[in-house]
Amino acid sequence: MGTACLYEGKAKRIFETEDPDVLRIAYKDDATAFNGEKKEVLTGKGRLNNEISSLIFERLQEEGIASHFIRRLSDTEQLVHPVEIVPLEVVVRRIAAGSIVKRTGLERGTIMDPPVVECYYKDDALGDPLLNDEHIRLLQLAKPAELDTMKQLALRVYDVLSKLFDRAGITLVDFKLEFGRRSGEILLADEISPDTCRLWDKETGASFDKDLFRFGQGDLQTGYETILSRLGGHEA
Amino acid sequence: MGTACLYEGKAKRIFETEDPDVLRIAYKDDATAFNGEKKEVLTGKGRLNNEISSLIFERLQEEGIASHFIRRLSDTEQLVHPVEIVPLEVVVRRIAAGSIVKRTGLERGTIMDPPVVECYYKDDALGDPLLNDEHIRLLQLAKPAELDTMKQLALRVYDVLSKLFDRAGITLVDFKLEFGRRSGEILLADEISPDTCRLWDKETGASFDKDLFRFGQGDLQTGYETILSRLGGHEA
Repeated sequence: MGTACLYEGKAKRIFETEDPDVLRIAYKDDATAFNGEKKEVLTGKGRLNNEISSLIFERLQEEGIASHFIRRLSDTEQLVHPVEIVPLEVVVRRIAAGSIVKRTGLERGTIMDPPVVECYYKDDALGDPLLNDEHIRLLQLAKPAELDTMKQLALRVYDVLSKLFDRAGITLVDFKLEFGRRSGEILLADEISPDTCRLWDKETGASFDKDLFRFGQGDLQTGYETILSRLGGHEA
Repeated sequence: MGTACLYEGKAKRIFETEDPDVLRIAYKDDATAFNGEKKEVLTGKGRLNNEISSLIFERLQEEGIASHFIRRLSDTEQLVHPVEIVPLEVVVRRIAAGSIVKRTGLERGTIMDPPVVECYYKDDALGDPLLNDEHIRLLQLAKPAELDTMKQLALRVYDVLSKLFDRAGITLVDFKLEFGRRSGEILLADEISPDTCRLWDKETGASFDKDLFRFGQGDLQTGYETILSRLGGHEA
């Protein structure tokens, strides 16, 4: 497909297609962490994230959660509807890990019931800071009703994913979602993959997610391959 | 009064009195900033903060805002009711300055209408991080109804103080409040002074507050004396 690249992010490229209502996402093998300070090319990562994210979005659509996702196109590509991205990262946390440990002083591993929802400003220059609902109103990032919808959808996604991963012997620790607007409707967008989730082995507690890369704890591709395989996806 | 010191903070000591329902607060001349990293003794600061805070709490009580404040006792002391402090710093911001500039990317001086309310975790070891409502629930720092009460009271305090300072030729930029529980009721507590507010000259924009000390911009005592004098308090 010789169509124009509309956007290149850290982990994906987005291309036009002949249909103005359809975009093509191509997952890259680039791994980045700490707001881009750590970078590496990890062969196969693009395929793994595309497979896992496609599988998850298919499952969410079966559960009636509307998203930008149309279908998996190839090993590393999927087709999606264009949306106007809301510049928020909506994070759902069920177990304390990462920044919430530093923020709250809770011990890593503390179970949070019900799960905690956080919104971060998707702004690399500002370092993706935490925002409260009033900051979101102030910056006009989302209308109050849109914010409510995003938080409710995030908790519905949590319900579906926690069961999906639990059946696969995996603990869903936390995850990040992005949303977009399409014809006035809020849709789940972006990707859901081990790049955007913390996923721990239920038995051993070992990480299968981007923390492998962030903290050099092990082989990222093997961890991601385990996730894909346990979710029932086809191995390479 | 030879009664026991119950607590010594960065800027105040709190003493028992003969009456279990009354405590004595003694303001110190110590100035601290950046979570205690910058420290200095500034003669007269304790008196100025006691005078200004007493004057402000008297005004808030006239407006029906319940607080721990009983009365000014001396140049550097006041009497208050004991409360169980809620470990939150409730900040009201009308004009962008300080951390909200870094968090949101808004230019310093941007007017925020309506004012923005933020809650910070009063925890020096964690660096007083921003919390959202879900973190506050998670950490059980305040019940949802208490949090609502604190936010509503904070905006009522804003209404009273912005008029009070405006009449004195001073722009109320932002301020920090603390609250406490007494017999199940949420009361305004702590102090309200140029240590806990940003106050700019309406004409020149010059700071009259702790930023003078934080950033070595000028003489703190002269700034605080100006505030006291313009509010109609007696000069030393």
